[in-house]
Amino acid sequence: MNLPKKVKIVEVGPRDGLQNEKQFIESADKIALINQLSDAGLSYVESGSFVSPKWVPQMATSTDVFTGINKKSGVTYAALTPNMKGFEAAIAAGVDEVAIFGAASESFSQKNINCSIDESLERFAPIMATAKTHGINVRGYVSCVVGCPYDGEIAPEKVADVAEKLLKMGCYEISLGDTIGVGTAASVQKMLQAVGTKVPVEKLAVHFHDTYGQALTNIYTALSMGVSVVDSAVAGLGGCPYAKGASGNVATEDVVYMLNGLGIDSGIDLDKLLKAGWFISDILGRAPVSKVSNAFRAQRVD
Amino acid sequence: MNLPKKVKIVEVGPRDGLQNEKQFIESADKIALINQLSDAGLSYVESGSFVSPKWVPQMATSTDVFTGINKKSGVTYAALTPNMKGFEAAIAAGVDEVAIFGAASESFSQKNINCSIDESLERFAPIMATAKTHGINVRGYVSCVVGCPYDGEIAPEKVADVAEKLLKMGCYEISLGDTIGVGTAASVQKMLQAVGTKVPVEKLAVHFHDTYGQALTNIYTALSMGVSVVDSAVAGLGGCPYAKGASGNVATEDVVYMLNGLGIDSGIDLDKLLKAGWFISDILGRAPVSKVSNAFRAQRVD
Repeated sequence: MNLPKKVKIVEVGPRDGLQNEKQFIESADKIALINQLSDAGLSYVESGSFVSPKWVPQMATSTDVFTGINKKSGVTYAALTPNMKGFEAAIAAGVDEVAIFGAASESFSQKNINCSIDESLERFAPIMATAKTHGINVRGYVSCVVGCPYDGEIAPEKVADVAEKLLKMGCYEISLGDTIGVGTAASVQKMLQAVGTKVPVEKLAVHFHDTYGQALTNIYTALSMGVSVVDSAVAGLGGCPYAKGASGNVATEDVVYMLNGLGIDSGIDLDKLLKAGWFISDILGRAPVSKVSNAFRAQRVD
Repeated sequence: MNLPKKVKIVEVGPRDGLQNEKQFIESADKIALINQLSDAGLSYVESGSFVSPKWVPQMATSTDVFTGINKKSGVTYAALTPNMKGFEAAIAAGVDEVAIFGAASESFSQKNINCSIDESLERFAPIMATAKTHGINVRGYVSCVVGCPYDGEIAPEKVADVAEKLLKMGCYEISLGDTIGVGTAASVQKMLQAVGTKVPVEKLAVHFHDTYGQALTNIYTALSMGVSVVDSAVAGLGGCPYAKGASGNVATEDVVYMLNGLGIDSGIDLDKLLKAGWFISDILGRAPVSKVSNAFRAQRVD
């Protein structure tokens, strides 16, 4: 088994996680969470998104968050920017990087953003151009890479096609998202094989939701295929909008525990990460959606 | 990746699961659960244990359970028998198979049953002899195969040694238990490599607790090494006595979902299995400790 020696974790809890949490989190708490995450050694924190507050009320305070965090040297603070207006607001708020997105499922694209996949990518062209002039890196997300809530299974070639388009548009990294967490090691392997024919593996990240408990095994499969960037959310923040009551992003704690066991360096202090997860979970008034977090908390004497 | 085409699931929920549940479950409910499990296609159900009711009150009704279930043809109903008295009670109750156990950790053996590993194995000699005369198969468990709550890491050679002794005593299958769920793919691989030098892989089963969320990845690793028998518990029954609040056995639902995704036949009807898990979870008054179970339940319209 050929596993990478180092893995970069892209912490998406403050954005992809919190945006799916119903309880509104105050800016001060979001800022404290992000500061705790960078202090725990996370080198990349997706800290907010610049989207209409009508659609995602939780992200309405992203400017306050970006201007309030203690920016730590060597840490990238990124934002999701669905359109030019959002991109400009992100730049004004001083983000380091932005992310754009496309679905690998036509139905998901139509139902989610009311246009075809190709149209959705075209709309990002002005962002790509402006980002270049600002020297801002752009990350690309592909959603529904193994399954779609409307279309079921997604052809690996379709994922490869969208990933390649994002790469050609100028994205420096493509994050492949199993948005509804239905993938298993077999479907993830097939998908990554197909994408690998179009995008170099060094430019790929995996972004798995743990709806069916398969995320860690799927991450392990991706690592064994040469992927070395993994998206995850502290405390497993964020539910699944397509199955209320089901779980969301894979927990960063669980990923780090696995990486530590595999002898893979992530640069993350698990103890500090656990505390960041307990901090935000206590605010949300519930247990973390992370077995590692709950097991360690259960053992604490204090 | 060389995965088996078929996997046998050893359902341990009614025994290893329930024995760690505080709430006492009535015999009628245990019987209903076991019947639902066999109806779902489980071909092996560890249905109880014959141990002093002082130590494990939950198992005090095992005779009632074994004499009350609808024994389905082709299904093995097994019991854990820690001593000769328990073995005789098991035979009288009509069990198909029994299981004995040894720890791979000296400290665990001393603190758990107050004797050395070798002494604990010697005590099983009369059971092995009597089982042979009755034509009863005996399964052997090894606990603490990667970590121990007292000694920390366990040497793979020690596990291999205990597994080989159980095999030589006459056990037809050796189930390797990560009792506290601390293993990751790397430690599990090392352990299985060591055990494989002493016991043929066809005689091995894996029994992983999901305390740190690693169980499925570890099962996947074991499958890729040729193991084709997996212990699991419906609804992830059973907590962890070494970390209160932490989770217990890996959920059968999560294992079956993965096997289905890998195209591996388990003979199990996931829909019926889910219902069995909801049945016992409702009696326990809590959600199943299974992401698959919760995700499917969240999607139900009825």
